[in-house]
Amino acid sequence: MRIALSQLNLHIGNFEGNLAKMLTAVETAKAEKADLICFPELAVCGYPPRDFLEFDDFIKRCQQSVAALCEVSKDIAIVVGAPTRNPVLAGKDLYNSAYFLFDGKIQAVQHKALLPTYDIFDEYRYFEPASEFKTVAFKGKKIALSICEDIWNLGNENPLYTICPLDEMMPEKPDFILNISASPFNYAHAKTRIHTVKANVQQYQIPMFYTNMVGGQTDVIFDGGSLVVSPDGQVFDELPYFKECLKVYDLEEVMKGGIHREQAKDKIHLIHDALVLGIRDYFQKLGFQKAILGLSGGIDSAVTAVLATEALGADNVRVLLMPSQYSSDHSVNDAQVLAENLGIQYDIVAIKSVYDAFEAALATQFAGTTFNVTEENIQARVRGTLLMAMSNKFGHILLNTTNKSEMSVGYGTLYGDMCGGLAVLGDVYKTEIYALVKYINTLPIGKYRMEGVIPQNSITKPPSAELRPGQKDTDSLPPYEVLDPLLFQYIEQRQGPNELIAQGFDEALVKRVLRMVNINEFKREQAAPVIRVSAKAFGMGRRLPIVGKYLS
Amino acid sequence: MRIALSQLNLHIGNFEGNLAKMLTAVETAKAEKADLICFPELAVCGYPPRDFLEFDDFIKRCQQSVAALCEVSKDIAIVVGAPTRNPVLAGKDLYNSAYFLFDGKIQAVQHKALLPTYDIFDEYRYFEPASEFKTVAFKGKKIALSICEDIWNLGNENPLYTICPLDEMMPEKPDFILNISASPFNYAHAKTRIHTVKANVQQYQIPMFYTNMVGGQTDVIFDGGSLVVSPDGQVFDELPYFKECLKVYDLEEVMKGGIHREQAKDKIHLIHDALVLGIRDYFQKLGFQKAILGLSGGIDSAVTAVLATEALGADNVRVLLMPSQYSSDHSVNDAQVLAENLGIQYDIVAIKSVYDAFEAALATQFAGTTFNVTEENIQARVRGTLLMAMSNKFGHILLNTTNKSEMSVGYGTLYGDMCGGLAVLGDVYKTEIYALVKYINTLPIGKYRMEGVIPQNSITKPPSAELRPGQKDTDSLPPYEVLDPLLFQYIEQRQGPNELIAQGFDEALVKRVLRMVNINEFKREQAAPVIRVSAKAFGMGRRLPIVGKYLS
Repeated sequence: MRIALSQLNLHIGNFEGNLAKMLTAVETAKAEKADLICFPELAVCGYPPRDFLEFDDFIKRCQQSVAALCEVSKDIAIVVGAPTRNPVLAGKDLYNSAYFLFDGKIQAVQHKALLPTYDIFDEYRYFEPASEFKTVAFKGKKIALSICEDIWNLGNENPLYTICPLDEMMPEKPDFILNISASPFNYAHAKTRIHTVKANVQQYQIPMFYTNMVGGQTDVIFDGGSLVVSPDGQVFDELPYFKECLKVYDLEEVMKGGIHREQAKDKIHLIHDALVLGIRDYFQKLGFQKAILGLSGGIDSAVTAVLATEALGADNVRVLLMPSQYSSDHSVNDAQVLAENLGIQYDIVAIKSVYDAFEAALATQFAGTTFNVTEENIQARVRGTLLMAMSNKFGHILLNTTNKSEMSVGYGTLYGDMCGGLAVLGDVYKTEIYALVKYINTLPIGKYRMEGVIPQNSITKPPSAELRPGQKDTDSLPPYEVLDPLLFQYIEQRQGPNELIAQGFDEALVKRVLRMVNINEFKREQAAPVIRVSAKAFGMGRRLPIVGKYLS
Repeated sequence: MRIALSQLNLHIGNFEGNLAKMLTAVETAKAEKADLICFPELAVCGYPPRDFLEFDDFIKRCQQSVAALCEVSKDIAIVVGAPTRNPVLAGKDLYNSAYFLFDGKIQAVQHKALLPTYDIFDEYRYFEPASEFKTVAFKGKKIALSICEDIWNLGNENPLYTICPLDEMMPEKPDFILNISASPFNYAHAKTRIHTVKANVQQYQIPMFYTNMVGGQTDVIFDGGSLVVSPDGQVFDELPYFKECLKVYDLEEVMKGGIHREQAKDKIHLIHDALVLGIRDYFQKLGFQKAILGLSGGIDSAVTAVLATEALGADNVRVLLMPSQYSSDHSVNDAQVLAENLGIQYDIVAIKSVYDAFEAALATQFAGTTFNVTEENIQARVRGTLLMAMSNKFGHILLNTTNKSEMSVGYGTLYGDMCGGLAVLGDVYKTEIYALVKYINTLPIGKYRMEGVIPQNSITKPPSAELRPGQKDTDSLPPYEVLDPLLFQYIEQRQGPNELIAQGFDEALVKRVLRMVNINEFKREQAAPVIRVSAKAFGMGRRLPIVGKYLS
């Protein structure tokens, strides 16, 4: 039996586009003599469809796509994810299902039992868990069909769940496992995923074919890396990360095993590729081509410009250099060098005249007050408005360059440097950005126009917003080497004040930093969507009250 | 037996504050010879605590509050909501529980079984449903203890659930039902709630004491209106809406019944009171006193100013009048009259000079282009920046004045008129705002400084953003009398395109409006939190993808 895995970049709600991709894949698989082709979880509508699932029309269109796939299933079996109406008036209205189509008919429908409802996941908001489990008979084989999370409670060891779906199917002695997934990227997740797939295979002693989705859906990135694992527990094949792919496997070969093909998984390399895909898909799926951003001479905007150039091409990236009266000559120069290194269009627009106009307009109201954060914010907002004006006039999307360290502690101006359609680095700590710079600057020529594309001076100078004379980030914040590990423990690891102090962090610092994080929820609430690369990103996966008074 | 209901305005994560309020209430109830006092759901930590529940320290502090209440329970029983650790490593880590404290001990803990996971609710993200149900014996009575949603599947008629917790307790023949709730406001919900409580009482033929929370938690408003329903199915008492209250009832009197005390529930009156509470609590819970907003001469900003004045006092509200070169004289005049009617401080700051500075700064880049939405947006952003500068300099929170009609179709400038800490009218359609104006203008003197506080001219003139010569909202949008009912059907009623056309809406209009709603998700994602007054508000209760391509 020949089994095709089709790792596709699908688009939420784009029924025509998703169906067209799947029909093409079916033709390719047929040409390669596949008996069976697997598409990802909820492939017909894209993942996560969120509240679109509450619209009857949306579910009907999902079912129309299933019907269209049914029609081309005469000579090939198709496994595809789609929502199903729960026919019973008890429990949630829908199931998250895997359809097994063959011979022009729906042969079987297996619903998902384990519904992730944590972090970015809201599945129990929409879906009823499966309570029935049956293998599917096909060409003399029995197939255990499962959906994403269903393989993540092996041995009932995941405390979130009380059932293990594959255990329920094993009495029927299936020949192999198919899993269709929409498993999102974070820089540690591919390793965990392989571990989990392998552990299932070792437990049940039958091979698994695991198909994952690929592509960016605003903030959430799906990384692909679909897997075939032989009964010996070795990775028979691992599809590429961050790319579409179709590949056909001979079941007999997979059964034999003896092959081990795992790809390297370097954290910074993965983050780089995820961010490039995240930018590219955000533009492509919204129907835009061109990006604009402000280039300050610092490394955050430098890295954003580099990633945007790789994602969209140099012709589609434009930057503004917007020196204030407090900017060093170096800053403009460093930004200019980078723009020239990248071959992207740049303009220099000084902000002083507009800033002065604001000061004059408010002269009466501000009489007798002194320069403070207000004036710093005005400058940041002048920049935001200039960038948005360019964006509006020429059809660019503004890319936001805020990093995770700043976003955590609220070191940024709402409606100023927090403007943008997409926060490229909002899930990357400042110390990780330095690592990203190092990675980018050692990439061989060809990847970018030159080796060492980011100027050394941008890397070595102390970070500064340059909104008052001689300003440094460290005037307001602890050094990033101290701040970032503390933020990581609080945000990603959910450690409270006592645990943090027990870990050796200074008590006063813990109190100060946790307070900064918590009182700035109102800013993050209005921030641009953040491309998710860690296990806990700002956005839909982290939900905190604005008016809370905890640790603040 | 004397039973006290304590309807409190609690604050998420403010353990000291919440505990202090409850201790005071316990003292009052003791003084009034109550045998038992009931606090709302998750009263120790406030509702909804969201991802704070993932911090071990947060749960410990909840338990410390329970312990502190235990200590004062020697002479009075206390029923209070708090999270409980699930001791078993299977299923979610927490329960949402009602604690029954008496004689210095935890006498019983009843967990919640029905966990709302829809709209604004995420309870299954955190909590495991209860599987055990027992009544509590107290002073010769048996009490059926239940938590909020637990009474919302009467007769197993709610398709979301498969169990009815009170049915499980009835074999023990309880004498009365206690329900502790955090049931959020929408303008139709109080009626539904009374209907549900009555239906439970009619089913089980025993009285119910229903304690609800009160207060604003950023976007979500809890309206109070706690209930006592006698076995005859009549409302023995209904506590006030939008106010804290403690009241003690004699069980014998309640058993007798024969009293019916329901308050009137006018939609616009309720919305008015909810918005005032929403503003007041947002400021109070964040520790701010003063609001600023832009007054345009139109009704949205007029109503916002009136509500802010009622919530915070005239001394705490300041407005900017920011005419553009396209503003009519009338607009400034109408705004001035309103500010004087309200007795609030106002400043006039013309935006032309700053706008001109932006145009000059971008002259090279914009050479050869013509005035379009870019220049309109620059003007809106100049206003936003002026308001934020005042806010930063003097410690105001900026109130946003966007209405739901505009927010739905994206008729507003991100970082311009969409700026603000709180969107007061973001869940109120334009046509409802006219009704609100009518209501406000007929309130007796004393409520405001004068009758007819909002100038007639603001009400009668056609809505306009005044960002280009002679601009009217109807240049870009259908008339609000046409637009609003369509938006209501799509947003609140989740009707799809076919249903809308079947309802008689014009097909081209349906297509156009649904597209406008869906392509503007990126703007709403960055909007200020919206005070929720309807059954489907923008914010955490409505979750849609930005890059979706459905009906767009």
